[in-house]
Amino acid sequence: MTTAAQPTSLPLQIAITTGEPAGVGPELTAQALAGAAAHWPHAQFTVLGDANLLAARARAVGVDWAALLAQGKRVRVQHRPLGAPSLAGKLDAANGRYVLDLLDSAIDGAVAGTFDAIVTAPLQKSTINDAGVPFTGHTEYLAERTHTPRVVMMLAGTGKRPLRVALATTHLPLKDVSAALTIDGIVETLRIVDHDLRHHFGLPAPRILVTGLNPHAGENGYLGREEIEVISPALKLANEQGIDAPGPYPADTLFQPRYLEQADCVLAMFHDQGLPVLKYATFGEGINITLGLPIIRTSVDHGTALDLAGTGRADAGSLIAAIDTAVSMAQHRRAG
Amino acid sequence: MTTAAQPTSLPLQIAITTGEPAGVGPELTAQALAGAAAHWPHAQFTVLGDANLLAARARAVGVDWAALLAQGKRVRVQHRPLGAPSLAGKLDAANGRYVLDLLDSAIDGAVAGTFDAIVTAPLQKSTINDAGVPFTGHTEYLAERTHTPRVVMMLAGTGKRPLRVALATTHLPLKDVSAALTIDGIVETLRIVDHDLRHHFGLPAPRILVTGLNPHAGENGYLGREEIEVISPALKLANEQGIDAPGPYPADTLFQPRYLEQADCVLAMFHDQGLPVLKYATFGEGINITLGLPIIRTSVDHGTALDLAGTGRADAGSLIAAIDTAVSMAQHRRAG
Repeated sequence: MTTAAQPTSLPLQIAITTGEPAGVGPELTAQALAGAAAHWPHAQFTVLGDANLLAARARAVGVDWAALLAQGKRVRVQHRPLGAPSLAGKLDAANGRYVLDLLDSAIDGAVAGTFDAIVTAPLQKSTINDAGVPFTGHTEYLAERTHTPRVVMMLAGTGKRPLRVALATTHLPLKDVSAALTIDGIVETLRIVDHDLRHHFGLPAPRILVTGLNPHAGENGYLGREEIEVISPALKLANEQGIDAPGPYPADTLFQPRYLEQADCVLAMFHDQGLPVLKYATFGEGINITLGLPIIRTSVDHGTALDLAGTGRADAGSLIAAIDTAVSMAQHRRAG
Repeated sequence: MTTAAQPTSLPLQIAITTGEPAGVGPELTAQALAGAAAHWPHAQFTVLGDANLLAARARAVGVDWAALLAQGKRVRVQHRPLGAPSLAGKLDAANGRYVLDLLDSAIDGAVAGTFDAIVTAPLQKSTINDAGVPFTGHTEYLAERTHTPRVVMMLAGTGKRPLRVALATTHLPLKDVSAALTIDGIVETLRIVDHDLRHHFGLPAPRILVTGLNPHAGENGYLGREEIEVISPALKLANEQGIDAPGPYPADTLFQPRYLEQADCVLAMFHDQGLPVLKYATFGEGINITLGLPIIRTSVDHGTALDLAGTGRADAGSLIAAIDTAVSMAQHRRAG
């Protein structure tokens, strides 16, 4: 008779920032954690948000929040007060600092080792900007606050052989993408992806397929020269560092299932080259992972869905997948 | 008791150009037409190619070509002689003119009304270029030879609600895409797509969803201004002409199945924004359709697969889908 593997160490500590209070973050958190005991028996969750808001939104979507909090230490709330009462669907700049406060608390806790990973529900940039704080996105903020010079945005599906797409450039106007690609930048991006796939995803020999920038990967220079002058030299250097990253391949060839099956990750050169397939393939259960940070951070890949807030009709699938992945990554990091 | 609809007119005449003689085109044509009687009972096929080559390649992949040709007028060969004997997998510039000859014969026949549609197997550009003839691709050649100022490349899957992706720009270096987008160009592209979906696809009220150019469709100008200055004005003009083309939408939102279900076609701004999803979704059975021509033309969406030529291991799925679509388009054009 065999017994199931038991974790011999302390439970994993996962922080969840509930994000924009007028959005679906609070209610999705409640819905996702309603299944916490079954899904993540070896994790404990700290929910960052206003305790009254969380209770109200949980009630609105039919989750027995009090009962969940009464289950010992499985789910607890770290109360941070709202700047102003929040109505579902109504943005209010008075809560911009609140949203940042949740994020700061989670990051500080993760850096200090209190949390093994953080999972972020969506926020609304304009709420923060309208509060007078320049803010371009979760990813950039995490990098800045943890003093990380380069991070990599990776989106992923779940499943036995999950589709993962990392980006060499992210939120740039399309016309600026070519100039933003450098040999050093691509090598460093590959180094980060390779490292994190090994150490946070338990992949001992990750294989990263790399796209070209231009149609047909430039057709030997006929449709652009970045493949010859930037991407191929970068892949050669990465290869010399022991990184298995073949390419550059035409994106519309590489993203066929039969090629994806041979890859642990795709490195796409820009946002709209890599993410449409990922979103198509994951049916709303894709997640966003920031690689290269000193902490583990996963996120939903959707926005605040203000029109659905408070209705219970938003789908918690992406948040559940983000928690799943954060738990798995934290386990892998602990293991080695 | 009802009877199946019977075509009251003459059988549809479909020309197939077998393309590069060293590639998989000849054998895929034989494999696809082996099921012609069952798949396309109301069509007759004219296969353009060297009669001996076609017989040999059919034999190599186990198709009884002589029996097929003996079935009355269902499949006939219009013999065009090779420039030099062709070995599977071995390119030879001596056959560059031959490949063009097949194409010219098909185009001339379609323009003259002898053929209702043409289906093109893959060719190798270098074979033609090495023969001293400048040639950038099937699509451009078809436009030039039919004196068509603007054509639109559309890729499609098959199925009940097929995914269709048309492109506002095609084979351009990525850094040149922004400058190539104009209000007039997008309006004209939409006009062509709308017209052909109505008249060749039997869609009385086609709905075309349009992507933005930049990540998140520019985020209100924060990530690029082409949506504001070019795409939105074009969509407004198109709308005034009765074209149902909403947008611009973020590509990674639009390409989710739940949005695609509401569309007859997506207009993507550039090659690698639109085609990876199409190729991912169609599993090798995607096809390429040239819209805006005075003739109907469909094509496989793959290349010559020189490494597979003569082996019978290449998949005829895309060619069968291309023939299916050509037959259907020709029927709709006749009907309307």
